[in-house]
Amino acid sequence: MDHIGLAVADGIATITLNRPDQLNAFTTTMENELIAAYDQLDADDSVRAIVLTGAGRAFCAGADLSAGAATFDHWQDEDGDEGADARRDGGGRVVLRMFESRKPIIAAINGPAVGVGITMTLAADFRLAADDARIGFVFNRRGIVPESCSTWFLPRLVPLQTALDWVYSGRVFPATEAFDAGLVYKLYPRESLLDEAYALARSLTEHSAPVSMALSRQMMWRALGAEHPMIAHRVETRGINIRGIGPDAREGISAFLEKRPAVFPDSVRDDLPDVFGEDLPTPAFRG
Amino acid sequence: MDHIGLAVADGIATITLNRPDQLNAFTTTMENELIAAYDQLDADDSVRAIVLTGAGRAFCAGADLSAGAATFDHWQDEDGDEGADARRDGGGRVVLRMFESRKPIIAAINGPAVGVGITMTLAADFRLAADDARIGFVFNRRGIVPESCSTWFLPRLVPLQTALDWVYSGRVFPATEAFDAGLVYKLYPRESLLDEAYALARSLTEHSAPVSMALSRQMMWRALGAEHPMIAHRVETRGINIRGIGPDAREGISAFLEKRPAVFPDSVRDDLPDVFGEDLPTPAFRG
Amino acid sequence: MDHIGLAVADGIATITLNRPDQLNAFTTTMENELIAAYDQLDADDSVRAIVLTGAGRAFCAGADLSAGAATFDHWQDEDGDEGADARRDGGGRVVLRMFESRKPIIAAINGPAVGVGITMTLAADFRLAADDARIGFVFNRRGIVPESCSTWFLPRLVPLQTALDWVYSGRVFPATEAFDAGLVYKLYPRESLLDEAYALARSLTEHSAPVSMALSRQMMWRALGAEHPMIAHRVETRGINIRGIGPDAREGISAFLEKRPAVFPDSVRDDLPDVFGEDLPTPAFRG
Repeated sequence: MDHIGLAVADGIATITLNRPDQLNAFTTTMENELIAAYDQLDADDSVRAIVLTGAGRAFCAGADLSAGAATFDHWQDEDGDEGADARRDGGGRVVLRMFESRKPIIAAINGPAVGVGITMTLAADFRLAADDARIGFVFNRRGIVPESCSTWFLPRLVPLQTALDWVYSGRVFPATEAFDAGLVYKLYPRESLLDEAYALARSLTEHSAPVSMALSRQMMWRALGAEHPMIAHRVETRGINIRGIGPDAREGISAFLEKRPAVFPDSVRDDLPDVFGEDLPTPAFRG
Repeated sequence: MDHIGLAVADGIATITLNRPDQLNAFTTTMENELIAAYDQLDADDSVRAIVLTGAGRAFCAGADLSAGAATFDHWQDEDGDEGADARRDGGGRVVLRMFESRKPIIAAINGPAVGVGITMTLAADFRLAADDARIGFVFNRRGIVPESCSTWFLPRLVPLQTALDWVYSGRVFPATEAFDAGLVYKLYPRESLLDEAYALARSLTEHSAPVSMALSRQMMWRALGAEHPMIAHRVETRGINIRGIGPDAREGISAFLEKRPAVFPDSVRDDLPDVFGEDLPTPAFRG
Repeated sequence: MDHIGLAVADGIATITLNRPDQLNAFTTTMENELIAAYDQLDADDSVRAIVLTGAGRAFCAGADLSAGAATFDHWQDEDGDEGADARRDGGGRVVLRMFESRKPIIAAINGPAVGVGITMTLAADFRLAADDARIGFVFNRRGIVPESCSTWFLPRLVPLQTALDWVYSGRVFPATEAFDAGLVYKLYPRESLLDEAYALARSLTEHSAPVSMALSRQMMWRALGAEHPMIAHRVETRGINIRGIGPDAREGISAFLEKRPAVFPDSVRDDLPDVFGEDLPTPAFRG
């Protein structure tokens, strides 16, 4: 990995955006490495949760603008057509991969998070931030448009008026404002941020069955777009039917009745059932 | 009714989960009785609102676990197939019936509400709670998955980060935390909870036309899943066209202009128009 | 314009509901003039934002009830059929036009906003209110149903329990309660309300490319109904591909790197690209 770091300890993976001299500015290399990292972590049963943070003093300063006004010229296809079909938004590819994650993702926003630097965190399950971090959805000030599926995620995470204010104005604002609006779950002093992220990861996972967590993550995120609760009922019925008679449920109920910690046998890598069937499918990309 | 109580007084029905010695643990009998009760109350024009509470010190401790590790073994169909089509989630059946209710439902959470004990309240219009109640979405700790359409309702009722925290961790938390997150509308001392629920029921209904309430309830709940405001416009146009020239509107406008209380003649049982047409249909169940 | 006023100064348009002797009660004339005003302002590149307010002491007292109990009798079609297909809800027509606006809309609620007087503001991007204003979704008290697409908008703007309380009861409540619930973005003394609305308009627009604003407005509002973030990804990919190589992006990035204000050349009237393609279409009306 050239532009990110990846480490696993005590059941928690840490992905570090790792171009500290460029304030971890986002590149195509970083995009592809992030997707590969999420693939790898989903297949590793020793990993229960993922923390995403930045090296050095920034979280991510946004797209790498070292090409200046030509920054987005690579956004044309190989035949030179400058059409809408040319190339997929890179932040969106990363965020859609996060959306499919089988493990909870905690963004630990240790410093400035601007442009794709903040939008890439919107598909994380939680955003913790250093209390002196600064955040900006600056796309309108650069003459482009919001990306990384932020037009879908942001109004589902904060009040609509706040989302519109941030995106229209493109202003950079303190993490305290993001906390007040609910974008950031908890604020911490920068020096304790990572420890708090690990503590949250442990609190989420220590008593929960890994397969149940993977399923409930997928079920809740996908149900956000379901038109009627009946769709969730179909999915949940499959989930209860399959999981209720499996080894994890027998262990979970027995442990509860015996007032002892549960040891769940099922594996996310090997035993993840399909609870969706034809419901809540992932649409294909089209340009 | 064996596992619930049902009483009507002063235009307000009270449904009581009534297995106090088992902390009102949820059973298939309770499931079927709840559905029957909502059917009965919708057809009774003397009932303007419904309060749902628990007998004794608990609201509902969740699924009855008296069968131990075999609790969910009945979740296989009559041919013994243990597949996803076997049987519908019982809490989901109750909640989908509540979703269709013609009367507002107020859950008065008088004590512990855990598992299906809390998820069955998510399709209530309001959740009031005793300030010492405790709540838990414990499914991941039992090795199963969330149910009762909670994967659809919960993220529409509280901030997504909070919903994910509660469901991932499966922890039991105080009603004060549920209130701070918006899951609970108002907190009261346990001894005044039911009186406050009745007071809310009166404040909702005392000046409003019953048919208007039934329609606005259906319209708002169903519009939650509508892809575009045009869908609501179609439904509302039908509603205004039909209702605007009817007896209730003539009485409502006249009473307002004459500064006197309105007496609305239309009946929910007899006069409820279809405002939906082909819009916002109820999907069928499929396994 | 007979029932509204329209003025433009310093890049900001002001639409004034202008029947002060009738507390700006809503009429079919007002409905048609509002739609025409939004059409005109979208085509005028000198206008960056729109402020909507009321003349005199009220914002809008609701539908004009001067016809008494016969108020909604015109809601029958020309053949005299009193059916659901008769005529479209007028507030809904206005709100759906606002939904399509290319400029941000700020409702400055200077006094009472009742019935369609408040529901017509729900498709505004922001609601500022005088701190002594009063608000009511009074439809159920008049025997009709909520309109102006409010069954779609309101539960997306405030917590569901609050939306249901307001609509079921039909009670009139202070703007402070609307602010606490998030319906109103900011409260101000009545005498400074308009100045604050203009200040917000400037803060939203002063550093942002007009075409980027028009696109991000459309993208965020429409994405509210998208079933999956992939839909937003398709739209955003088109947006980044088209906008990223255009004059605005070259100017925006260059200005940022040169630490100078940007001067964006693209025109909303002439240069607004189609980023939606087949995604997030506007459904047709049907009765």
